[in-house]
Amino acid sequence: MSDQRTAPVPAHETPYYAVVFTSVRTEEDDDGYRRTAERLSELVKGIPGFLGEDSARTPGGLAISVAYFRDLAGIEAWRRDARHREAKRYGREHWYERYSIHIARVEQSHTFDRS
Amino acid sequence: MSDQRTAPVPAHETPYYAVVFTSVRTEEDDDGYRRTAERLSELVKGIPGFLGEDSARTPGGLAISVAYFRDLAGIEAWRRDARHREAKRYGREHWYERYSIHIARVEQSHTFDRS
Repeated sequence: MSDQRTAPVPAHETPYYAVVFTSVRTEEDDDGYRRTAERLSELVKGIPGFLGEDSARTPGGLAISVAYFRDLAGIEAWRRDARHREAKRYGREHWYERYSIHIARVEQSHTFDRS
Repeated sequence: MSDQRTAPVPAHETPYYAVVFTSVRTEEDDDGYRRTAERLSELVKGIPGFLGEDSARTPGGLAISVAYFRDLAGIEAWRRDARHREAKRYGREHWYERYSIHIARVEQSHTFDRS
């Protein structure tokens, strides 16, 4: 989770990949969810080609996380990570009412900074 | 903005396109921002090939909106829309500290629903 940051992941040289994860939570066990989310956010930084992650959550509404990777090999490595797999399995059982995952090849990007 | 909905945009038949817009707001004129955002959310529904939009905003933090389109022609039509262009111009002057836009071709997707 990157709620504390105040700068979105910037545009990178294309092509690169985005994993969009959009979810609606159950009421269950918010503390456990937060701890696991924070741990996964640290672990993903060790994946080769990881470029950054943005997260936002509307209180009582949708959560969206977008993780960026240089290539599909990084996404596959993260998908195969045993700690990530276990968290996803647990999440489907306990934390998520619904979610969608969209894996996409970024073809154009742009960053605006007022300063 | 789709904060009120409780279901994320589902997986569609690939390929399709995602426009990820991640932003940090200024302090300025939240009412004007909300009105414009609501108006744009209605307008984009009229774009051919528009598939849906998910939005989330962490209070005091990042906002993420992801709009999905069947093809690049829809994204281009939305980009050329005069009301959209005017809102973006005004937004750069008044509402946004920073933003990133990533336009991406969705190659894999999946939806989970507990029910």
